[in-house]
Amino acid sequence: VSGPAPLSATSRTRLTRHRELAATDRAALRAILDEAFVCHLGVVVEGTVRVVPTVCAPDWDGDDPAGTLYVHGSVAATSLVAAPDQTVCATVTLVDGLMLARSGFEHSIGYRSATVYAVPRPVVDQAELLRVLDLVVDHVVPGRAATLRRPTRKELAATRVLALSLAEASVKVSDGDPEDPPEDVATGTWAGVLALRTVADPPRTAADVPVGTPTPHDVRELARRLGAPPPPPPG
Amino acid sequence: VSGPAPLSATSRTRLTRHRELAATDRAALRAILDEAFVCHLGVVVEGTVRVVPTVCAPDWDGDDPAGTLYVHGSVAATSLVAAPDQTVCATVTLVDGLMLARSGFEHSIGYRSATVYAVPRPVVDQAELLRVLDLVVDHVVPGRAATLRRPTRKELAATRVLALSLAEASVKVSDGDPEDPPEDVATGTWAGVLALRTVADPPRTAADVPVGTPTPHDVRELARRLGAPPPPPPG
Repeated sequence: VSGPAPLSATSRTRLTRHRELAATDRAALRAILDEAFVCHLGVVVEGTVRVVPTVCAPDWDGDDPAGTLYVHGSVAATSLVAAPDQTVCATVTLVDGLMLARSGFEHSIGYRSATVYAVPRPVVDQAELLRVLDLVVDHVVPGRAATLRRPTRKELAATRVLALSLAEASVKVSDGDPEDPPEDVATGTWAGVLALRTVADPPRTAADVPVGTPTPHDVRELARRLGAPPPPPPG
Repeated sequence: VSGPAPLSATSRTRLTRHRELAATDRAALRAILDEAFVCHLGVVVEGTVRVVPTVCAPDWDGDDPAGTLYVHGSVAATSLVAAPDQTVCATVTLVDGLMLARSGFEHSIGYRSATVYAVPRPVVDQAELLRVLDLVVDHVVPGRAATLRRPTRKELAATRVLALSLAEASVKVSDGDPEDPPEDVATGTWAGVLALRTVADPPRTAADVPVGTPTPHDVRELARRLGAPPPPPPG
């Protein structure tokens, strides 16, 4: 399975440390972070590495010209408490398909991944926190934040958001056909790609919603965009 | 976004360290690892945590009664070289949907995740390595390994596989409806779930395959299982 280095590490230093990504990589980074809503956050807690799936959303219009990745969790999350004292690593991976080669060795995953290194800045300013919480909701469901009630003081106090600068980031993309050596291609064996996509089912209304309550526009629109079949006509 | 601790850390020690998972959690762990083919591997390299997406496959029939998670990469991958000298963390996350609550705070992701802590054992025995490479291919595309040529000596030398015992693992599952407080439910506002699924497109044959070469059964079967529309009839 997998060729030279399909889903595997690169030297942090060699690829990205202390340099801006090239413009093409910047665009790829943006595309990946705009599409993902979960990252895997790596933090050392009490001497052991911990990898935690965490909701995330990028911000391209803030003070940091490189952009910011906000990661979001509970104040009770040990990893988010430990994070601001160290350089953490956040990785986003979008799996696009399976590359089915003529040999096991050349089998690999088609994917796009982005890796960010940063010393996180906890978001404590209440105005920024309110703005970021809306940004995260709208990142997952565009247009939704404006339809919701405002967070309470207690909710804000229970929420922890970390800001990761995107100044130090790298992007890896593996796509196209499998790359078999000529002697394998010459055998005439089949090879190809099985593309994978994330699709939505039609929105499901919670059990405690009054009968007849319409599904909001923002939810219907996201479902449509993610390929859900249209809901049955009302009545 | 998110309630008490939706996608966030738990204390490694409190939940899982040095204890077997309960039987129900074992079954959940197995279901998650059987479904995923990418994990995020956390490794400390030169003092900094690194999170690397890596192909993985579980083995429930090996010597370790707890099961084994094999992670797979290139010998050139720094993280896989550094891993055997430390306790690493591998996390698998399956995103099942979006929980769309009445407030931003209660918004969360529906997911199943598994986290494993282990000091990796590099697989160096050639017989085990051959067996594991087949296991990984068949994990991703059931039945495929037997249809492929055997790995060459050179390919085996270029492949690095680590075995992670599943003795120390934890599982987190977030599912069901959003959990809004009674005062939000009382407003009659809509809430619900947008379920997400991974689906396949029809298999795409690589450009360098002779015209008319049929798509193998194992690939067609996986595509069918992942919801791809049936291919057009030949001719």
